[in-house]
Amino acid sequence: MPLPDKAACIGAGVIGAGWVARYLWNGVDVAVYDPHPEAERRCRDVLATADASLERLLGGRPARLGALTFTDSLADAVDGAGAVQESAPERTDVKRKILAEVDAHAPADALIGSSTSGLLPSWLQADMARPERFFVSHPFNPVYLLPLVELCAGEGTDPQAVERAKGLYAELGMRPLHVRKEIDGFVADRLLEALWREALWLVHDDVASVAEVDDAVRFGAGLRWALMGTYQTYRIAGGEEGMRHFMAQFGPALKWPWTKLMDVPELTDALIDKIAEQSDAQAAGRSPRDLERERDRGLIALLRALESEDLAGGSVVGAYKRARFRAAAPDLTPDTEGRVQTLTVTLAPDRLDATGGLSAAACQDLVEQADGALLQAAGSATRPFAVETSLNRSASPGAGARLTVTTRVVSAAERVLHLAHRIVEADGREIAHATQTLHPVDDTGRPTALEETALARLQALV
Amino acid sequence: MPLPDKAACIGAGVIGAGWVARYLWNGVDVAVYDPHPEAERRCRDVLATADASLERLLGGRPARLGALTFTDSLADAVDGAGAVQESAPERTDVKRKILAEVDAHAPADALIGSSTSGLLPSWLQADMARPERFFVSHPFNPVYLLPLVELCAGEGTDPQAVERAKGLYAELGMRPLHVRKEIDGFVADRLLEALWREALWLVHDDVASVAEVDDAVRFGAGLRWALMGTYQTYRIAGGEEGMRHFMAQFGPALKWPWTKLMDVPELTDALIDKIAEQSDAQAAGRSPRDLERERDRGLIALLRALESEDLAGGSVVGAYKRARFRAAAPDLTPDTEGRVQTLTVTLAPDRLDATGGLSAAACQDLVEQADGALLQAAGSATRPFAVETSLNRSASPGAGARLTVTTRVVSAAERVLHLAHRIVEADGREIAHATQTLHPVDDTGRPTALEETALARLQALV
Repeated sequence: MPLPDKAACIGAGVIGAGWVARYLWNGVDVAVYDPHPEAERRCRDVLATADASLERLLGGRPARLGALTFTDSLADAVDGAGAVQESAPERTDVKRKILAEVDAHAPADALIGSSTSGLLPSWLQADMARPERFFVSHPFNPVYLLPLVELCAGEGTDPQAVERAKGLYAELGMRPLHVRKEIDGFVADRLLEALWREALWLVHDDVASVAEVDDAVRFGAGLRWALMGTYQTYRIAGGEEGMRHFMAQFGPALKWPWTKLMDVPELTDALIDKIAEQSDAQAAGRSPRDLERERDRGLIALLRALESEDLAGGSVVGAYKRARFRAAAPDLTPDTEGRVQTLTVTLAPDRLDATGGLSAAACQDLVEQADGALLQAAGSATRPFAVETSLNRSASPGAGARLTVTTRVVSAAERVLHLAHRIVEADGREIAHATQTLHPVDDTGRPTALEETALARLQALV
Repeated sequence: MPLPDKAACIGAGVIGAGWVARYLWNGVDVAVYDPHPEAERRCRDVLATADASLERLLGGRPARLGALTFTDSLADAVDGAGAVQESAPERTDVKRKILAEVDAHAPADALIGSSTSGLLPSWLQADMARPERFFVSHPFNPVYLLPLVELCAGEGTDPQAVERAKGLYAELGMRPLHVRKEIDGFVADRLLEALWREALWLVHDDVASVAEVDDAVRFGAGLRWALMGTYQTYRIAGGEEGMRHFMAQFGPALKWPWTKLMDVPELTDALIDKIAEQSDAQAAGRSPRDLERERDRGLIALLRALESEDLAGGSVVGAYKRARFRAAAPDLTPDTEGRVQTLTVTLAPDRLDATGGLSAAACQDLVEQADGALLQAAGSATRPFAVETSLNRSASPGAGARLTVTTRVVSAAERVLHLAHRIVEADGREIAHATQTLHPVDDTGRPTALEETALARLQALV
């Protein structure tokens, strides 16, 4: 489905604000209603982090961000909204009351999703007059980075609404998973909960500390889980004989009395103290904010790595970038020096050399991106192949620097372009300049000719 | 501890062969004993994959690989071995018999580890005359890529042996986790098992298919698990109020009757058929070999991404590379044209442009690496800052190409170097050449002077 012009986010804590970021970055205006006195500040804090993270993940900014407003009433927020996302506290009574009010004020064809991580949609929609457009759409934190959203219909939900929702969330860059049976916790939280119960017992029984349990995940199987789930992993473990072999070989082990999973350790003060103290030690002075930034930095690196391999979550990000997200195509109007602005980026930490400054390779990469952006803006489907680049560097800014590339077309012919690029910092200081001889090539790297209109546009810039 | 000259691997299936790869890449000779008639072929298959994967992960090859031999008897394999790794089938009787034989023939001070994923070390060491040097060292598949190894002592184990083992596995590039209480399944497999049980119920109850369960992991929480475990994740979810707040808020939900985890679904033929068929559909024609290669490709990308951020498993890989693994330092003996070979790499898929060929930025990166290697080989602690690079490209090889950079020192002075590089393919075809003006800089990027001896060595090459 096409994206709505306006979305409403009811509740703007960590999860709600994550949804706000997703909508804004897709050019959708968002009205937020959250009665908490600190709601706006907290939401804007999350948005600042999300904004920086999305720019690094996507390598640029959208042509237009949606407009953000905070309203004093729920009715104002949902008025005219094509999509409503409820992210209120995880209590059935609270959510039912809010959803009934959403139901009364939202447009008849609005899609209404609840972010609940485990409450049944049939309960939640029970007080709605038009429950057919309601469903659960359960995201994962941080909502602006992780692709998964679980969709689950209640008894009163129209299957068509779920189909429309799949389209909506895919447009937002997510990976909808339709949970076909309505069960508490859906699919993902069942799995998370299983891990969490076992993790609690391990600490309760002093088998391992909080940090050790986490290490057992992140240095081992956790790396695989970013790539594949349990079933695929075990299929590979089954080797040439496959899944059936694996089940036959390891099935019996399931009967061993390893776990105490159905029980939950009594959350006594002593256990809570133990976990809180060990968790403090693990954090080693890092604030929740520090941990959040570290998490985002890691997730962005992971998603970009998977994107370059077109695997798992990286495939979702890659498809989204190709299909929907475009950095503003450079405007081909030259400035007084005859230069067009071809690229603006914020320098990511992975582009630095051993001294912590912009590496020569990263400079070259900016130049190469600017080449591509110029050809794209001229309406050409060809790609640039630089046969000759002369790169002169005068400074080496660090992570976070905002860099702009401007480009002058020195000459343009059907099969060869001469370009002169400048890379400057936000304050106008020159970082590097480069001159290039480019041949246009096709998708497979074979030399080709520029299209007539693209050539004319580039020649007009000479 | 320093690495032994020789290690013995008893059992060389997928796990055993993974250990073989770790030892060989650290320059340790390995003797393998595995009575399976196909053992050598299967082991060499795994080693071929491991070899390519390790080269991509580490960006080069070690100065010397260990020598590999297959023996006809266990006694010959363990003779003179400083470390023995048992990776036999997961049956207590089989392992006990093997370990008693290892015990009888291995040197008195050899460390003896078992790869068991869940059997108790006290049982396994029961028939050993010198059980004090035995422990469990449980790795994760693929052993040559995943850092985690769980160490667990039995009643008869000398605590000093565990300390020595920690040193041994750290030297091999792994992350030892000492499991201090002896329980079935140790820590990691308890967690994996919890997830697996829940995953089985979800498919048994037709809540989700095999592929959907896996998607619920890899598009969501699985991405976080490559970075952090459950406790750290929930600490962040607790926000400014931290872990105690999280426990208070979400603790009660643990009492909800969500799971059936203590029970295991009866592995009827019907359930096994269902899982095997859904798993076939998920694999969509990819062979176990294809899936394995895809897994390695993904894990390498993930580990390299985390390495660039110095986080989680990437920190282990980074520290290992810095401390132990060095690509052979370039030899400063010039060839007949006065060139020294500064770099040899296999082109990784993440260095390609949109046409699938080597990007200009990746070319520049090779040149920059060659600069660094040259300075290092000359014994300089300075780093290169290229103020001017002129790069000429004539071809654009694809992933897997083996590229060599040779470098001619055109002139060398205390504060400025002129270099000429050539990038060639294995068949001698030139891919690109570059001329450069470099300034030596210190660790913080400030211009500095070359050390006297380094300058003399570089001038000798002019």
